[in-house]
Amino acid sequence: MSTLSPLAAAFRQTEYPVGGHGRRNLDVLKEVINELDGTVESDIYGTGEGIEAFQAEMAAYLGKEKAVFFPSGTMAQQIALRIWCDEAGIRKVAYHPLSHLEIHEEDGLRELHQIQSILLGEKDRLIRLDEILELQEDIACLLLELPQREIGGELPPFEELVAISAHCRAKGIKLHLDGARLYEVLPYYQKTAADICALFDSVYISFYKGIGGIAGAILAGEEAFTAKSKVWKRRHGGDLISLYPYYLTAGHYFKQRVHKMPQYYEQAVELAALYNSCHLVTTLPRVPVTNMFHVRVALPKDKLEPILIALYEETGVGLSHFLREINEHTCGFEVSIGDCYARIPKNELKRALERLDASLQEVNWPM
Amino acid sequence: MSTLSPLAAAFRQTEYPVGGHGRRNLDVLKEVINELDGTVESDIYGTGEGIEAFQAEMAAYLGKEKAVFFPSGTMAQQIALRIWCDEAGIRKVAYHPLSHLEIHEEDGLRELHQIQSILLGEKDRLIRLDEILELQEDIACLLLELPQREIGGELPPFEELVAISAHCRAKGIKLHLDGARLYEVLPYYQKTAADICALFDSVYISFYKGIGGIAGAILAGEEAFTAKSKVWKRRHGGDLISLYPYYLTAGHYFKQRVHKMPQYYEQAVELAALYNSCHLVTTLPRVPVTNMFHVRVALPKDKLEPILIALYEETGVGLSHFLREINEHTCGFEVSIGDCYARIPKNELKRALERLDASLQEVNWPM
Repeated sequence: MSTLSPLAAAFRQTEYPVGGHGRRNLDVLKEVINELDGTVESDIYGTGEGIEAFQAEMAAYLGKEKAVFFPSGTMAQQIALRIWCDEAGIRKVAYHPLSHLEIHEEDGLRELHQIQSILLGEKDRLIRLDEILELQEDIACLLLELPQREIGGELPPFEELVAISAHCRAKGIKLHLDGARLYEVLPYYQKTAADICALFDSVYISFYKGIGGIAGAILAGEEAFTAKSKVWKRRHGGDLISLYPYYLTAGHYFKQRVHKMPQYYEQAVELAALYNSCHLVTTLPRVPVTNMFHVRVALPKDKLEPILIALYEETGVGLSHFLREINEHTCGFEVSIGDCYARIPKNELKRALERLDASLQEVNWPM
Repeated sequence: MSTLSPLAAAFRQTEYPVGGHGRRNLDVLKEVINELDGTVESDIYGTGEGIEAFQAEMAAYLGKEKAVFFPSGTMAQQIALRIWCDEAGIRKVAYHPLSHLEIHEEDGLRELHQIQSILLGEKDRLIRLDEILELQEDIACLLLELPQREIGGELPPFEELVAISAHCRAKGIKLHLDGARLYEVLPYYQKTAADICALFDSVYISFYKGIGGIAGAILAGEEAFTAKSKVWKRRHGGDLISLYPYYLTAGHYFKQRVHKMPQYYEQAVELAALYNSCHLVTTLPRVPVTNMFHVRVALPKDKLEPILIALYEETGVGLSHFLREINEHTCGFEVSIGDCYARIPKNELKRALERLDASLQEVNWPM
């Protein structure tokens, strides 16, 4: 059985977790299901009123012809890339070295689809336009992730996206959007989802990250593309007889939260400023461009952990349940702002960050 | 949007549907979720108390070292076959020509795993022992489906399974069980699930067929096998952040129904006898060996459909929502007995079957 780390256990006891929308427990499902009538029919292998209505709603939101609901983004994105590779007759795609496909999918793209990936750019920054323009190898598809999660949620200027899109169209390269957190970039760009998706041939969005649903994803594009994606969904074993626990909750929390993204973004900017005022602490990016950012602390993980545990116990504010070791001198964690942030009294939050600053001033560690 | 056929629409209005456990609507989920506390935690990418406990329970039930919960059987079975092929260094497996993998999975096994399938036996009967013994080609794995659904749910004698298993072990061929309906064969064999699974190297079971859950499957075997299956589950996009809507309902309905399989079986035998007493009607098998069988009517589909619609309206008994054309002279449907059967007053059911017999006696169709 799984056991919690001391940090996760202390975090769990806090009254005020800073990130996210709250615990991922059964209430997330109950809140949605209890409002609906029990005679609502299940979807059956991707057909039925409920799933078709949700897909149509998402297609309209994304400004695409059609949308298909998938159990996971891993499945949806591999399938998108496979379709574009088959169409081009080229088994190569390009993406960032820290793309979800590269670091979280056990090499599914190669093992299941025999697709080779070209890693563009460096691990610590966005892919640059010149790297795309100068790419020598033939690729079927370029995948861009907005925001680039693993570097703290950075975004290129919108004009750069326009230029990348124009280049890809001119070269016959399909452009796919890993839009797991697409909603979260709209306030910064001051664009609609459809404005951004118009630059891309295919788009994936997720419902459990910024939206706070249980699981599930949408893949959208032209009808010829989505029709093929349904065949691949069946091949992958993703065409479940019933997906309704996922799309019903996805639709519910989408309506509840998609309009709150500007608020989450402002709150992320506010919180990052508080972090940056602490000794030894910086955020990536320094000023967030979405509701997320990364916190870096110039201390080894085993030095920071007891400081955080004491802070959680003293203040009731939970900063993170997890610390990632960056190197032997530095550790960090991810912050993603959701509904929880607004529940924290401002003075409690400030007191917690002041406490963090004071603890880090006192720490006995060679700089 | 999906629309119902006239037969399905008439079926939906009936008070007494004959097969299944009832409508696949939201109440199936509500019944389970409402009994549980909202603080029950979600699984996270296959870990967590709930999913691990359910997997351990299913491993024990099947008599296997470990079990892994999957969103679908399509995914679980392709992965099982892939693991056995990789281990043997042979990209060939054998199964029945009407296996789920052959007719319902859009060729996923070949398209995703480059595995060639050898179809053993004929479409209208079980694979025979001699066909297995005489197979010349090297295969990594033989898949057997118990019961063989597409021919009405037939079963070989248990001794034949023992002989097949012994042969495969001697030859180094892995034996995989498509046990989507494994529970349903236990009353006929008078064996436990573990007795049967002991003959197989890997086993898949389903929770939405005989059990009446929402979706989901278990794949079980030795730990070295299930550990690999988790890596492939992630590659397939099946390692969802949360699968709890499926395993919670699977566990609930498993407990509620697995002990009722002998009752469903007896009821299937009873109902098949009633069908066989009707003019132009036969069942496959003549005497069911599980809770399922197929009904064949020696009439074209378009002749039988209005007869059934009239019967549903007159008697309130729904025999099938769907008719499959077998050939230009014959059509048929599948019956799978669940909780609904016991709710039908016996006299109403007999009256409906007598009405069917009378209608078929009168029908104007050249024999």
